[in-house]
Amino acid sequence: MSVTHAAGFRAAGVTAGLKASGKPDLALVVNDGPDYHAAGVFTGNRVKAAPVVWSEQVLADSRLCAVVLNSGGANACTGPDGFGDTHHTAEWVADALAVSGRPTGAVDVAVCSTGLIGLRLPMDLIADALPGLVSGLSATGGAAAAQAIMTTDSVPKQATRHDEGWSVGGMAKGAGMLAPGLATMLVTLTTDAVVDPAQLHGQLREACRLSFDRVDSDGCMSTNDTVILMSSGASGVRPLAADFQAALNETCLDLAMQLLADAEGASHTIAVTVLHAATEADAVEVARAVTRSNLFKCAIFGGDPNWGRVLAAIGTTTADFEPDRLDVAFNGVWVCENGGIGAPREQVDLSDRQVDVTIDLRNGTEQATVWTNDLTYDYVRENAEYSS
Amino acid sequence: MSVTHAAGFRAAGVTAGLKASGKPDLALVVNDGPDYHAAGVFTGNRVKAAPVVWSEQVLADSRLCAVVLNSGGANACTGPDGFGDTHHTAEWVADALAVSGRPTGAVDVAVCSTGLIGLRLPMDLIADALPGLVSGLSATGGAAAAQAIMTTDSVPKQATRHDEGWSVGGMAKGAGMLAPGLATMLVTLTTDAVVDPAQLHGQLREACRLSFDRVDSDGCMSTNDTVILMSSGASGVRPLAADFQAALNETCLDLAMQLLADAEGASHTIAVTVLHAATEADAVEVARAVTRSNLFKCAIFGGDPNWGRVLAAIGTTTADFEPDRLDVAFNGVWVCENGGIGAPREQVDLSDRQVDVTIDLRNGTEQATVWTNDLTYDYVRENAEYSS
Repeated sequence: MSVTHAAGFRAAGVTAGLKASGKPDLALVVNDGPDYHAAGVFTGNRVKAAPVVWSEQVLADSRLCAVVLNSGGANACTGPDGFGDTHHTAEWVADALAVSGRPTGAVDVAVCSTGLIGLRLPMDLIADALPGLVSGLSATGGAAAAQAIMTTDSVPKQATRHDEGWSVGGMAKGAGMLAPGLATMLVTLTTDAVVDPAQLHGQLREACRLSFDRVDSDGCMSTNDTVILMSSGASGVRPLAADFQAALNETCLDLAMQLLADAEGASHTIAVTVLHAATEADAVEVARAVTRSNLFKCAIFGGDPNWGRVLAAIGTTTADFEPDRLDVAFNGVWVCENGGIGAPREQVDLSDRQVDVTIDLRNGTEQATVWTNDLTYDYVRENAEYSS
Repeated sequence: MSVTHAAGFRAAGVTAGLKASGKPDLALVVNDGPDYHAAGVFTGNRVKAAPVVWSEQVLADSRLCAVVLNSGGANACTGPDGFGDTHHTAEWVADALAVSGRPTGAVDVAVCSTGLIGLRLPMDLIADALPGLVSGLSATGGAAAAQAIMTTDSVPKQATRHDEGWSVGGMAKGAGMLAPGLATMLVTLTTDAVVDPAQLHGQLREACRLSFDRVDSDGCMSTNDTVILMSSGASGVRPLAADFQAALNETCLDLAMQLLADAEGASHTIAVTVLHAATEADAVEVARAVTRSNLFKCAIFGGDPNWGRVLAAIGTTTADFEPDRLDVAFNGVWVCENGGIGAPREQVDLSDRQVDVTIDLRNGTEQATVWTNDLTYDYVRENAEYSS
């Protein structure tokens, strides 16, 4: 399943010993072609981990044969030596693939890492594990790969979409707002559709914009976030661009919702939807301001439909709106109307995990949704006790 | 003391019954002249409470005779009726002052409110209490006024500064990052120095910029934040502008530190200082990004000198810096050097309430400090259980 659902891909996951727990921690996804097109979207953080710098470089030519991913260490803030470690990893993967009969250059191998910051990876363990990882590659290895990239995730995250003769698949790691190690999110996507590299890149950015970019768990941007999409063209089918975009969007949104659902310390998943904005950018800005309000997120944890905190968050934005025309609903109950008191708050039931907050700006035709979690004791506990 | 420390001011505080607790909840500060100059700094939130809208208007002519302040209700998101309530309050204060022999217009009375959002104030209780409030005015009433504006504050906040023949005094309310009701901060400052209105306004803005603006407790901006400064000129002394600025800065910083120290759910007060930035704006942006990182604030709660989270926060800014030149110290121990591992983290002791985080950008000559608190179980508890 997942990354091996689409034809032309093999994957594997093994235990290299990077994690103290002894759980799987090294994964490999290989594209067997005939196409080797690829695109990537990386963290906007200016403090980038070595594997992010490396993978951005190797994706410059939109060609990729493999992605190697490790948990148990982020290889971030490790300086030139850390970059050398990433480079070596790519070289070793290329060498091992060549030995297995799949000639590959290191410049066609992307590297993703997640785990503790500021520590060098035990490179000998990676070197020792790579031959077994390559020999274990199989067309059914997607699930093993998805297991090996988990950190505090309680379940692996996988998604697939089918269309007429072609498929999209993917795996993700990250435990939503609670993910320690800066909530690093790693996503690998595959497709056997025939797609030109330029289209692949534009459509991946668009899919990320509407999914991962709109999951704002705790406002903290990781040094390692990476989304990579590879196309093998093995189906021989060239889908309509709109059909491919739809499948890619659905796969990314599916994975994004799995990330939120697995936020361990969270007791609520919150969708903040802004209606009737002047522009989509306004809608996103307003929704994001609300999802980043600690006071709002604490209120949801406490079961309190606190529309005052929603309005206060909206008021910090530059979006086009009139304060006395704002309406706000919690789970369909419009507790704030015209910027003031609306329906009785007692009508709101926040007992379900899913909470829908709707903000009507009454100022246009555009809309957007941003997702987040509530702020809980367990969020504090997990992020206070976890040592980086 | 506090607002009645400077000559020419009287104050009082009484229980009007706005608070269910029966504690004092209505305060008045009156300027007896001979000058009636005043300046105000208000919340940047676009959703402004009625008293903020009112007070901005009455301060347009830089003249003020009195400030009336209530706790027990923010009068925010209450529409035109709520604005009418604020207007009535100012009228009633002016009437009561006239009866007492101090002719005053409502347009010279500022109003400040703090407490729950989205509820009308019980105006009959305010009307009933005002005559007693005015008759209780005294030149030693500052402490009673400071008591009456408290919400979740555990102690009143007052500060004074003396110079040669003139003084500055002030009171504040707000419980730092933990203050429910959107952490509303109300500050009233008084001086008997002779200061021109234009100077008063510019110097108040500058003092706020270096104090209240740099206390970033939880990134949530209130609908009611107000700082008002009145000068009576009663000392007859016109200080040097630099001397007055220094006294005002010190008074504001003193009050700001008292706000932080009283953050009930916080276990640490954190000063984030950025050194050697290209510009002061860069230094503030970097410091503010760190103070707004929930992951960083949880780490401090957990006693973890987590420099990786500091670097990740710095990386989200637009400030001018090179990631591989960043140095970070916790309480003087440089655990991060050149963007990588520095001194052993075990050398850092975070057991004191005060934590100093120093970031050296090694990129210029400017610096700035922003203060915050850690993110704790009690922050979540207080803000989850408090119903607005």
